[in-house]
Amino acid sequence: MQCTVIFQPSGRGGLVSRGTLLQASRKLGADLEAPCGGAGTCGKCKVKIEEGFFNLSPLAEQEKLMLTPEEIVDHFRLACCAKTEGDVLAFVPEQSNGAKQVILETSKERAFNLNPAIKKYYVEMKKPTLEDYRDDFTRLKDALTSNYSHLKDDISIDYSVLLKLPNILRKGNWKAAITLWHDTEIIAVEPGRVEKMYGIAVDIGTTTIAAYLCDLATGNILKRDSLMNSQVRYGDDVISRISYCMMNDDGLARLHKMIIDDINTLVARLAQAVAISHENIYEMVLVFNTAMHHITLNIDPQYLGCVPFASAIRDPVNIKARDLGLKIARSGNIHCLPVEAGFVGADNVSVLIAVEPYKQEKMMLVIDIGTNGEIDLGNADCMLSTSCATGPALEGAQIKFGMRAAPGAIERVKINQCSLEPEIKVIGEEECPDTPPKPYVKGICGSGIIDAVAELFKAGVIQPDGRFSKKLNFPRIRQGSDGKPEYVLAWAARTAIGQDITITQKDVRAVQLAKAALYAGAKILMKKRGVNKVDSVVLAGAFGSYINKESALVIGMFPDCDLENITAVGNAAGEGAKLALLDTGKRLEAREVAAFMQFVETAAEPDFQTHFYDAMCFPHARDSFPHIQQILDEIPA
Amino acid sequence: MQCTVIFQPSGRGGLVSRGTLLQASRKLGADLEAPCGGAGTCGKCKVKIEEGFFNLSPLAEQEKLMLTPEEIVDHFRLACCAKTEGDVLAFVPEQSNGAKQVILETSKERAFNLNPAIKKYYVEMKKPTLEDYRDDFTRLKDALTSNYSHLKDDISIDYSVLLKLPNILRKGNWKAAITLWHDTEIIAVEPGRVEKMYGIAVDIGTTTIAAYLCDLATGNILKRDSLMNSQVRYGDDVISRISYCMMNDDGLARLHKMIIDDINTLVARLAQAVAISHENIYEMVLVFNTAMHHITLNIDPQYLGCVPFASAIRDPVNIKARDLGLKIARSGNIHCLPVEAGFVGADNVSVLIAVEPYKQEKMMLVIDIGTNGEIDLGNADCMLSTSCATGPALEGAQIKFGMRAAPGAIERVKINQCSLEPEIKVIGEEECPDTPPKPYVKGICGSGIIDAVAELFKAGVIQPDGRFSKKLNFPRIRQGSDGKPEYVLAWAARTAIGQDITITQKDVRAVQLAKAALYAGAKILMKKRGVNKVDSVVLAGAFGSYINKESALVIGMFPDCDLENITAVGNAAGEGAKLALLDTGKRLEAREVAAFMQFVETAAEPDFQTHFYDAMCFPHARDSFPHIQQILDEIPA
Repeated sequence: MQCTVIFQPSGRGGLVSRGTLLQASRKLGADLEAPCGGAGTCGKCKVKIEEGFFNLSPLAEQEKLMLTPEEIVDHFRLACCAKTEGDVLAFVPEQSNGAKQVILETSKERAFNLNPAIKKYYVEMKKPTLEDYRDDFTRLKDALTSNYSHLKDDISIDYSVLLKLPNILRKGNWKAAITLWHDTEIIAVEPGRVEKMYGIAVDIGTTTIAAYLCDLATGNILKRDSLMNSQVRYGDDVISRISYCMMNDDGLARLHKMIIDDINTLVARLAQAVAISHENIYEMVLVFNTAMHHITLNIDPQYLGCVPFASAIRDPVNIKARDLGLKIARSGNIHCLPVEAGFVGADNVSVLIAVEPYKQEKMMLVIDIGTNGEIDLGNADCMLSTSCATGPALEGAQIKFGMRAAPGAIERVKINQCSLEPEIKVIGEEECPDTPPKPYVKGICGSGIIDAVAELFKAGVIQPDGRFSKKLNFPRIRQGSDGKPEYVLAWAARTAIGQDITITQKDVRAVQLAKAALYAGAKILMKKRGVNKVDSVVLAGAFGSYINKESALVIGMFPDCDLENITAVGNAAGEGAKLALLDTGKRLEAREVAAFMQFVETAAEPDFQTHFYDAMCFPHARDSFPHIQQILDEIPA
Repeated sequence: MQCTVIFQPSGRGGLVSRGTLLQASRKLGADLEAPCGGAGTCGKCKVKIEEGFFNLSPLAEQEKLMLTPEEIVDHFRLACCAKTEGDVLAFVPEQSNGAKQVILETSKERAFNLNPAIKKYYVEMKKPTLEDYRDDFTRLKDALTSNYSHLKDDISIDYSVLLKLPNILRKGNWKAAITLWHDTEIIAVEPGRVEKMYGIAVDIGTTTIAAYLCDLATGNILKRDSLMNSQVRYGDDVISRISYCMMNDDGLARLHKMIIDDINTLVARLAQAVAISHENIYEMVLVFNTAMHHITLNIDPQYLGCVPFASAIRDPVNIKARDLGLKIARSGNIHCLPVEAGFVGADNVSVLIAVEPYKQEKMMLVIDIGTNGEIDLGNADCMLSTSCATGPALEGAQIKFGMRAAPGAIERVKINQCSLEPEIKVIGEEECPDTPPKPYVKGICGSGIIDAVAELFKAGVIQPDGRFSKKLNFPRIRQGSDGKPEYVLAWAARTAIGQDITITQKDVRAVQLAKAALYAGAKILMKKRGVNKVDSVVLAGAFGSYINKESALVIGMFPDCDLENITAVGNAAGEGAKLALLDTGKRLEAREVAAFMQFVETAAEPDFQTHFYDAMCFPHARDSFPHIQQILDEIPA
């Protein structure tokens, strides 16, 4: 007897024979951590049963030892012990996920002014006497203003710092390190001389949260880390998150707490990694799309989900860390970059202050690829922006063998035009130099999918309308289990999941839908802006630096452009957040940019559908795609 | 067999025969609430046993019914059931205290500008559309600034208000009432048209907390209420409170919570009395001495208790109500008036902005009588201030039959110079017009004590050095249980406590110590200020308006002054708090006054002790007291 097992958030699932959940996970390519090899001794393969709890074998003695009472109540099981006796939906928590995320660095060095909102000053004061009975705060202010002439007398002190002031000044024998925010508010006082000060920039994506620990004294990035957004269990895209808030009384409270917990997990990991105290982290800059912005701030996002998509607040927001429950210094500041409009969030503003298209004369197209795609077009005169629902296909989700950019993922594909045999590059494989190579491949990540589709199109396997050609007869092209054609990218012998990894007709369709949304959005912006070509294209996104820009051009993800003028800049939203953390000038710039951007609601444009359907095709040999034509012309016949 | 029973916070205690605590309370004049007459059916006579819990009879069935399990754990008993079998120290909670406080009103009408920090604005907005997709906050700001031209665009919004903004604007169909603080920060948003706005001024004394609910739209005082400061169980004066914080790890946390709970009790009672929601109370102004200031704000007060008495902060402080745990509107503001120096607190600043001595040319002496006395001297050119430990005698505490100014208290005394028979006025007695009067007298309050001592001095019963004259032979003068002389003010037949009420030699000594401290403080200020007489004297204090100014002059509570130029103004600290609540101009004035005042540390003055001992005597027929001499001359021989 077989049953259906699905692992979230990867979505990897299918029919499996009876056995443990760990066996099922290996069969289905869901990568579970199990250092003990399934002996039930390491406790690493914890999964949470979301559905079908009673379709599993009863709790084993081993599990009672390895799981906490809370975990047992919360339906956690050890995958190596729990045997399937029916259909099961299991959630794999981050720590049980064997595939550690690859953090992408930006290739580009960015120059910036080191001018953080946080500054630290050292002062020595005279002890109070019966003649000099100034209060502690006045004494401190006087010492600051007389030692640092640029500081003004109207400095205030955060209430929670005031509470500790008398004891700290005396503990340091009237020598103290004072942390100021914007040179106006005292947010920390420490005894003696302390120079350490840190900040964290966080890019909160719908799927992934990336955080960067920065030394505010030097501007150095000390450590980066990332985490899957725990909310993915409530749906892949922002609309499903908004719906969850609307359908459940405690929906917002629950999603809000999840994101705060996730950020706190990252804060703790970063602080531990470089052995610093969270008390010395004084500021965080957050960037996110508007739905994540609202949920993170605990604001009801329901009005973002319906016409006219009005957000609660566009202005940048500063909130005390304690008010949000974020565990940096209690009086630390949380700065949220400004929002543009409904579906164009602070993350796009962040991309813009990193890429700076508004500082040049040439016409630039900026595409930020994520579960939700953001597109900006313009130059110093005028900038337009829009947002389009690309879906998660370009990030590897909703693709039969799709996965995150993690070890085991196919990230590059070349297909021989004659033999149709593929050459693949797998993340992490070069670090395992076994000859012959061990079965290692687990799936395909976003850049691999884009490469594969482009190569299949160039080789004629896929026709301009996206359908597999019926004229070809090669071993790699076959009929899939859904009765539709598919292409075998890796034979089972080479995979770690014991089955062939394929690109299906359905996968190609998903890529077509995603790229058509981006293309149509760009086209409408170009029409609005009155241009029929762009001078340069910038591809941003958490995996943007890994995209093969030629493949992206060939499948028609954006209007035609000279290959030389296309650049992939990596996670530009994270870059912008770091810049805003380290340079307050960038916060002013962000505010100006948010106001400068003209938002175009593509859903309201009458010709959006036409553009969208036109863009579904692959742009084969058309006059309007000279650069694509050039690439296609170079293919040997 | 007899045992010692003491009731706190009145301090009323002594040897009693075995019996119930209720019987003991009646014998000792501690006024316990017992409407059922001790039948064990009303549950009103709850007391908390602080010491000697096991010296009481076991818990009666009746008590198990009337007390909650928490109360039983906390050592609460019903005084009518618990029988003494040994020494007991019992605390009488406010609600069991039969003597309800008399709230004194100020006689003086004060003119002020109605200009509170809180203002309310009504706006109507256009609904968002696809063309007008402004965010909610921008929409609201635009409506405010276009309807009210004095408002600027840099208005901010409190984080906890932002959370509710989207739903409230839609609930009110884009019509809303906006509450602004200082016209710069939105601290409340309500759907539709709401004009109600309230504030509370609170005078936090060492012994009593008085609160005034004000209508911020009209400036009217809607209701006043007061409560005993729960901290009195930890000592009468600020030094004992500071010691408690120093000696106990959780001392500050405990005292802080008590005061916050007390204020919240008053807030709830005031709101209920006039049937308003605490959500419509948007601001509180707090005044207090420096120790109460620190404890209320949860700041360690230990450095106030030792040389050089440095306070943590002198500046006025604004704190969000939620950060202090005060239950008015969550985003409401708590404004604390500025502090002058160690033992001269915001309450004295408050007295000053009510009395305004710094606005005139004449030399004015302001005395604020409380457990801690504050003295100010000067005019528009220069103002000095000091603080002196008067002790609680002038408030009726530490006096054998002393009590608060409550029904049953002797508040006025006249003694016939020939017969030495007294004529007494008792608070509340005129409201019980029984003929013959029921035994009603329970004790003596501060003004009665001052009257009694002044009259005994004028009649020659007390000599200038404070000792009872040994030459007189009258039935009212006798030897007390301590072997020292005493004067019977009321025979047992007229008292509700079944015993004679007397003024003892020890009572006279306590008054001498208190008035000498005030007198010596004033003298040192006069010397510092270079004057040998004052033009006017203002007597402030919670019972200040009830003091017979002639009696105060006769006992030498302050340097000689023409009786016509002495005024009693009542609770001026509470007045100043109300003014600061209703007129922000007064807050600026308070800040200027706090900086303008020159603090004199009397403890540091070498001749303080000399002045103090000199002032112990009653000022009989000396050349330097012409006005007192005049009063004494009028007494028939």
